[in-house]
Amino acid sequence: MASRTAQAEVALERHRDVGRVEAFSDGVFAFAATLLALGIRIPRPDDPDASSGLRDLVIAQWPSYFAFALSFVTVGIVWANDHVMFSHFVRTDRGIVLLKVLTLMFVAFLPVPTGVLGSWLANDRDRAVAVVFYAGTLMAFGIAHNLLWWYGAYRVRATSPRLSARERRALTITWLVGPFLYALTIALAAIDARLSIAGFVLIHLLYLLPTARLVVAAQRVRSR
Amino acid sequence: MASRTAQAEVALERHRDVGRVEAFSDGVFAFAATLLALGIRIPRPDDPDASSGLRDLVIAQWPSYFAFALSFVTVGIVWANDHVMFSHFVRTDRGIVLLKVLTLMFVAFLPVPTGVLGSWLANDRDRAVAVVFYAGTLMAFGIAHNLLWWYGAYRVRATSPRLSARERRALTITWLVGPFLYALTIALAAIDARLSIAGFVLIHLLYLLPTARLVVAAQRVRSR
Amino acid sequence: MASRTAQAEVALERHRDVGRVEAFSDGVFAFAATLLALGIRIPRPDDPDASSGLRDLVIAQWPSYFAFALSFVTVGIVWANDHVMFSHFVRTDRGIVLLKVLTLMFVAFLPVPTGVLGSWLANDRDRAVAVVFYAGTLMAFGIAHNLLWWYGAYRVRATSPRLSARERRALTITWLVGPFLYALTIALAAIDARLSIAGFVLIHLLYLLPTARLVVAAQRVRSR
Amino acid sequence: MASRTAQAEVALERHRDVGRVEAFSDGVFAFAATLLALGIRIPRPDDPDASSGLRDLVIAQWPSYFAFALSFVTVGIVWANDHVMFSHFVRTDRGIVLLKVLTLMFVAFLPVPTGVLGSWLANDRDRAVAVVFYAGTLMAFGIAHNLLWWYGAYRVRATSPRLSARERRALTITWLVGPFLYALTIALAAIDARLSIAGFVLIHLLYLLPTARLVVAAQRVRSR
Repeated sequence: MASRTAQAEVALERHRDVGRVEAFSDGVFAFAATLLALGIRIPRPDDPDASSGLRDLVIAQWPSYFAFALSFVTVGIVWANDHVMFSHFVRTDRGIVLLKVLTLMFVAFLPVPTGVLGSWLANDRDRAVAVVFYAGTLMAFGIAHNLLWWYGAYRVRATSPRLSARERRALTITWLVGPFLYALTIALAAIDARLSIAGFVLIHLLYLLPTARLVVAAQRVRSR
Repeated sequence: MASRTAQAEVALERHRDVGRVEAFSDGVFAFAATLLALGIRIPRPDDPDASSGLRDLVIAQWPSYFAFALSFVTVGIVWANDHVMFSHFVRTDRGIVLLKVLTLMFVAFLPVPTGVLGSWLANDRDRAVAVVFYAGTLMAFGIAHNLLWWYGAYRVRATSPRLSARERRALTITWLVGPFLYALTIALAAIDARLSIAGFVLIHLLYLLPTARLVVAAQRVRSR
Repeated sequence: MASRTAQAEVALERHRDVGRVEAFSDGVFAFAATLLALGIRIPRPDDPDASSGLRDLVIAQWPSYFAFALSFVTVGIVWANDHVMFSHFVRTDRGIVLLKVLTLMFVAFLPVPTGVLGSWLANDRDRAVAVVFYAGTLMAFGIAHNLLWWYGAYRVRATSPRLSARERRALTITWLVGPFLYALTIALAAIDARLSIAGFVLIHLLYLLPTARLVVAAQRVRSR
Repeated sequence: MASRTAQAEVALERHRDVGRVEAFSDGVFAFAATLLALGIRIPRPDDPDASSGLRDLVIAQWPSYFAFALSFVTVGIVWANDHVMFSHFVRTDRGIVLLKVLTLMFVAFLPVPTGVLGSWLANDRDRAVAVVFYAGTLMAFGIAHNLLWWYGAYRVRATSPRLSARERRALTITWLVGPFLYALTIALAAIDARLSIAGFVLIHLLYLLPTARLVVAAQRVRSR
């Protein structure tokens, strides 16, 4: 009986270990998502442009609301995909930890390009710069995310044996597409930055359903 | 014995899965609640209006303290109701995850209308705009929350069999009332925005006790 | 065997319930503690007073560092005492939840008086106002904290039977002292606000060791 | 069977206790890491220097991006080392709790010197001051971290018996090096602050791999 309790202890301990890495990671995701709202300026009655009335001020900020919503959904999708990836890893090593910190760094940085996008989206001259800065951050995240998957799944083979080679390849392809799509939105900014923004929305619609499907599939793999 | 440990592992794994979604969700709630304080300006000795003395500056900010307290209690109520809803779901699917992200987005956005309400509450000309912006955000949250419940409880029937049809209907009605009450405060703003603010306080008093009762009831349902 | 797994499930479920309330609460404490740093102005090279050089700017902000450290330790002490109180509760009810939200509200508000204290501590004219605002917030927290204990421990008797009446009384007295000490620092501000600040530091030294002892004692009570 | 459930309860309770301290700690780490992005100014179209165009504004902020990345990796390393230290403690006492709060205080303070470093890195006159402020904060953290280890591992001997004396000594040396390295970067600032910055990067490269190795080793020690 003592040994059974010991086993339970070990299970809890292991649970706690993984739990702490995930707690740190989830914390960064949740905070980054909530910090996005800080990029939205709160108009005050003593602002120089306040004479036009609060209604105009609130409406004039629509690009900031749009950028907030865009990035909030991005963080949600990214968090879910990160969740799926780690649910397939059965062990962790130095390289995984280091690459994980790298991906989290880009997530924590996201409030900056989001604030820039919200502030310059209505600016005809510099909209393209804001779009490239935004898409560049997400592309950098995507590259780090793919490096993490390549290292964990192919280099050190840390994925669960319950994940078949076919399923693993499907995940590789799904995640590889991301950075290329963001590179495409950067290219589109050379024509018209509004096309890039339409691209961001399309990428979301494209990723939302597969991501939700991946979450469900990951649960199925684990319960085999 | 191995199989018993395996079962414990599965229980922990499942616990961890639900735990991660909740950790992300709780993080957003707790963080949004704490960020509300950032909407309150900290007066500094070198501010243009500092000559009147700190006492006047601190007192002049009463609308910001009021808006902070109002939104803090709102987040608390909303968090408790979200907790109750998810305690009745026995499984999750893509639609639930997507609608959940939508509700969290409005929670994360709340510091913005709270800051606006605090800054413009004492402004006779634009108080109504601030009130409509605030009530509109909460109404949008309420609609998303009701969509989530309708989808989870009626469309994909993800609620626990331990929850009776009668209890489910009671929850549906309780949550359906919310957006209508906020629509009413928007209508009241056309007469006098101060009536809307009285309305916000009344909605709180109206929801505080039932919410606390729901939390206790949800625990009873689960322990059946 | 199925029933054993079921029992484990119930234990996990209960664990998860308490866990969510604590996750929300711990989140608010941890965020409030970290947000305190945002009250410290970051000097920039294009600030009007930057000509004096960064060294003078950094040194001139010592009151902000002091207020940050004072509040950080306060949040730590308050968090530990909250932890001790809840470790003695074996069940929760509506009143406990509502009063808990009230105490968390004052914790989340703390960055505001901390920023005010840091900005006005070196201001001879208005130092007393900043001190009263700061001490008032902590006194309000203390009153809410005592109400929560009185309600939970005496009104609805939610404390563990393993906590003896003598131990319960000792806790009541320990916590009752807090608001009176802060009231005293408010009174001292009428003489000289620097006495109040010395009082804040003394209260810390007074609470640090008993709090640490309470944490250890609470663990002993639970393991009986 | 009842007793077995009771044991499971105790295990969960103990798990929960440690969990709460870690939740608070992880919250502060994750939050401090994410707050680092707030030190980066978001350029707006109505800024006085906006006429030069967004591209120049975004590029001109490279020192802020560098300081952000430097501190983000620092928080990651520090968090992993803190994790390793606490995984070797099998019990906690007052002194450990108090010293833990002290280390967390420096972590929570880090966004301030990071913001200062990012704002003044390109300033030839005051770069050294920013570097000393930054290195000083990390040195202070390092001293508190070493005090915590010395107190826990040698004074009250709270480390696991599974950790050999040789392993304990190796950890002591690894952690003792940190503050001396930061003292060295402060000395280098007297010659040229750019040398100190190269030093920060070198310290990272020096600590990254051993830290990742420590994390893996700590897991091995625990599973003995």
